[in-house]
Amino acid sequence: MTSTTLSIVSELAEIVGPANVLTDPDVTAGYVTDWTGHWSGHTEAVVRPGSTAEVSAVLTACHRHGLRVVPQGGNTGLVGGSIPMDGEIVLSTRRLTTIERVDVVDRTLAAGAGVIVAQAQEAARQHGLDLGVDLASRDSATLGGIVSTNAGGIRMIKNGNTRRQLLGIEAVLSDGRVVTRWKELVKDNVGYDLPGLLAGAEGTLAVITRVLMRLVIPAPRTQVSLVAVTTVSDALQLVDRLERAGLTLEAAELMTRPGIDLVRRHHDLRAPLDVDSPFLLLAEVSGQRDTQALLLDVLEQAGESVLDAAVEEGPAPKLWRYRESHTESISAESSTPPVKLDLSTPLREVEQFLTTLTPALAENFPDVRAICFGHVGDGNLHVNLLDVKETERERVTDFVLRHVTQHGGSISAEHGVGRAKAPWLALGRSPEDINLMKSIRAAIDPAGLLNPHILPIR
Amino acid sequence: MTSTTLSIVSELAEIVGPANVLTDPDVTAGYVTDWTGHWSGHTEAVVRPGSTAEVSAVLTACHRHGLRVVPQGGNTGLVGGSIPMDGEIVLSTRRLTTIERVDVVDRTLAAGAGVIVAQAQEAARQHGLDLGVDLASRDSATLGGIVSTNAGGIRMIKNGNTRRQLLGIEAVLSDGRVVTRWKELVKDNVGYDLPGLLAGAEGTLAVITRVLMRLVIPAPRTQVSLVAVTTVSDALQLVDRLERAGLTLEAAELMTRPGIDLVRRHHDLRAPLDVDSPFLLLAEVSGQRDTQALLLDVLEQAGESVLDAAVEEGPAPKLWRYRESHTESISAESSTPPVKLDLSTPLREVEQFLTTLTPALAENFPDVRAICFGHVGDGNLHVNLLDVKETERERVTDFVLRHVTQHGGSISAEHGVGRAKAPWLALGRSPEDINLMKSIRAAIDPAGLLNPHILPIR
Ligand SMILES: Cc1cc2nc3c(=O)[nH]c(=O)nc-3n(C[C@H](O)[C@H](O)[C@H](O)COP(=O)(O)OP(=O)(O)OC[C@H]3O[C@@H](n4cnc5c(N)ncnc54)[C@H](O)[C@@H]3O)c2cc1C
Ligand SMILES: Cc1cc2nc3c(=O)[nH]c(=O)nc-3n(C[C@H](O)[C@H](O)[C@H](O)COP(=O)(O)OP(=O)(O)OC[C@H]3O[C@@H](n4cnc5c(N)ncnc54)[C@H](O)[C@@H]3O)c2cc1C
Repeated sequence: MTSTTLSIVSELAEIVGPANVLTDPDVTAGYVTDWTGHWSGHTEAVVRPGSTAEVSAVLTACHRHGLRVVPQGGNTGLVGGSIPMDGEIVLSTRRLTTIERVDVVDRTLAAGAGVIVAQAQEAARQHGLDLGVDLASRDSATLGGIVSTNAGGIRMIKNGNTRRQLLGIEAVLSDGRVVTRWKELVKDNVGYDLPGLLAGAEGTLAVITRVLMRLVIPAPRTQVSLVAVTTVSDALQLVDRLERAGLTLEAAELMTRPGIDLVRRHHDLRAPLDVDSPFLLLAEVSGQRDTQALLLDVLEQAGESVLDAAVEEGPAPKLWRYRESHTESISAESSTPPVKLDLSTPLREVEQFLTTLTPALAENFPDVRAICFGHVGDGNLHVNLLDVKETERERVTDFVLRHVTQHGGSISAEHGVGRAKAPWLALGRSPEDINLMKSIRAAIDPAGLLNPHILPIR
Repeated sequence: MTSTTLSIVSELAEIVGPANVLTDPDVTAGYVTDWTGHWSGHTEAVVRPGSTAEVSAVLTACHRHGLRVVPQGGNTGLVGGSIPMDGEIVLSTRRLTTIERVDVVDRTLAAGAGVIVAQAQEAARQHGLDLGVDLASRDSATLGGIVSTNAGGIRMIKNGNTRRQLLGIEAVLSDGRVVTRWKELVKDNVGYDLPGLLAGAEGTLAVITRVLMRLVIPAPRTQVSLVAVTTVSDALQLVDRLERAGLTLEAAELMTRPGIDLVRRHHDLRAPLDVDSPFLLLAEVSGQRDTQALLLDVLEQAGESVLDAAVEEGPAPKLWRYRESHTESISAESSTPPVKLDLSTPLREVEQFLTTLTPALAENFPDVRAICFGHVGDGNLHVNLLDVKETERERVTDFVLRHVTQHGGSISAEHGVGRAKAPWLALGRSPEDINLMKSIRAAIDPAGLLNPHILPIR
């Protein structure tokens, strides 16, 4: 340890107590490698403040020493944003775990940024309400994390993204100043939208310490249908018909034949339908009383574009299984760790994007296989690349990110920029737009101490 | 005219053509007084650029001369934000009227910032879609205006505010730089949310030139009910029951007995229900098939909290008339121009706020009468103060804004800060939060040239 490090460690220990400054590499190991195992760094200290005041004191101290800080919640992020790649101090929010209040009239939840998503959901459900966000990492991801990444997840098509669920925020700037925007109101047009700006900023502007989340009425009983279609366009038209019939879309997932074949190779699943179609749509809907009858009507009216369909009452484990087995089957099938890219395109481009990707890859990377699936309701596609050699990872990533950009799409639909996409920021935003982001960042964190690698300002 | 003015006027004329630089006070009159007539200023020039390039050239010229600029759309804003109170140049967006494209697959509308809301709605409806925002000023308000004020309006309870409808933006900074964030995607987590930051910034950060708006499926056939209740809490509980029954809330308006009495004095309307209750709830709902039956069920199940109710199929002109006649009746009844305050409180505070406001006013301003109504579904209350003497306007405004702040509310629910609320900004945001806003503004418009009065940075 250098002498700066020694002095900061003892300073931090005075603020949060020695037990909450971790320096032993065996103990910090859990904080320096990400969920995928791909991003791995090192740190001289993980500090775990237990209150906003402690977060403020910690950041004041780091600021004084000019030390860089990486905020970390549940460390489930998929773009390496929570990892101290260059020896930054890790500020873990995992002790900010107070659920302060669930308000059933205003339908809000006030809680510390370190509260685990599943615990917030549970607290809301005890009051007949629910968090508007749900995602498979719910047992580890934190509220501060889903806000910082503006997570999407499986309810986004109905409730919108995490930014939309965020009514109030408390956060600490890099110099220790605490800023608060906290009104338990859905309607408040007094000045700039601070919560909205911090949402999705991936910890580059402030450390979020408390959040006020909007709650929603839990989804009613649902109906799930798995539908065989020939084109993406048929799938999208069916989604449109379901919505126009007055049904609420709870999920709309697209799968491809190669994906289903792969899943069936790795799981004991029979062919889901009697027809072998290029695409399968899994649509989950809810409604008032006669949801199933209405769903069947819509399927009927869609005529020949529906090749075949199965319907099951929600939560429908049988039908969902085809979709949910994808991730595991992909990992099992690929000879190397799969490259996973979370992309989106305009809906009208999904078909073109998908049908041109495979031949383009085949031409340039003959050994690589792509399996795609995604939330087709919002144009979000998970592109999984199998059998990619370590030396080819960056090139094939570059290739696919350029391909999606050519189709008017985004290089990151829900996971953020992090380390993983930082080199491609210019594909996602215009130069003037990047400059503007840098000005904002420089105004709020002039020394660039918070998560400096995600959006470097100099 | 000063010599600077003369030189800038000829410079501007070169950019936009002489016909689009208005200097004659008879002609500029329509640009220097607001819709309410309360805010009235003066300008040496109104400039009407016809393209983004012209907006950029105009701002570059003004920047060079250090001239302040007030952007103006339809001039229907209700807080004096679009008025040149100190002789600023007015930049009118009313020539940016191109509707570029309606995309039915992605459900988006791309258009110039000067497009009138009603025209955008019409364009969307021709494709079986609709704009997510609607408000009574639709025939004059512009897309750039509703984005800049983050307008609420009558569909907000269902679709969210204007910020939520905004997918992409093009805007010109005070020095003429054009910034663009334009992806036809609902899911795009690459960096800070620029559209969200400019939405609600009331023209203090940039002049918006083009917008990409999300479109929605038009509301299906609705049912309207007018319900007599004893307390606000009964009204809110009924709203909750309607939603939990699976009905979609299209509107939820609260009225008071004094309001209804006043309306009936000025319009030939019979008592809406057989019971004289302190509060009336107007709830408009939609659903799939048996919406009316379901609505009646819910009213039945609400038991004694529903004193009486009437139900009519949407658009239900009879029942809505009680609500819509408020504004006109208030103007007719008040001996002086009414003071209109657009406020919100948490839902759980609406009752307390309303029941304490009248006695508190009576004690301090014995001649003033308050008539309140509002969108109770999102805690938004329109407080109208009648018979306020000109000399008392500021004091009574101050009194009510403090009252709403004490109840955890907002001094501006949907209209923004503008000139009208600028003196009370500190009631709406914390000092650290105001400082942060100023830093952001200073980073983007260092000279403070755009709408300098709304959020002065020095
Ligand atoms: C199995 C699995 C499924 C997933 N499914 C989804 C999904 O459906 N949709 C989706 O969007 N994501 C998904 N993710 C990704 C991940 O769960 C989300 O990004 C989540 O929001 C991260 O939360 P976290 O608490 O783990 O944050 P971390 O991983 O710890 O951090 C993520 C980023 O936010 C910053 N950060 C964290 N907390 C704070 C704070 N309090 N203040 C400031 N900055 C902070 C970090 O510096 C980092 O840049 C999934 C991940 C896994 C492992
Ligand atoms: C009868 C009536 C009913 C109304 N109902 C509602 C309602 O239900 N909900 C609601 O929220 N409001 C309502 N309003 C208020 C008003 O209509 C809204 O604030 C509307 O959004 C203003 O649009 P505009 O184009 O007229 O903007 P303006 O009044 O011209 O400007 C408003 C503000 O935005 C700025 N601005 C305008 N255009 C731009 C641009 N292109 N770039 C940057 N800044 C810009 C101006 O500088 C100003 O600060 C109502 C007004 C009236 C008269």
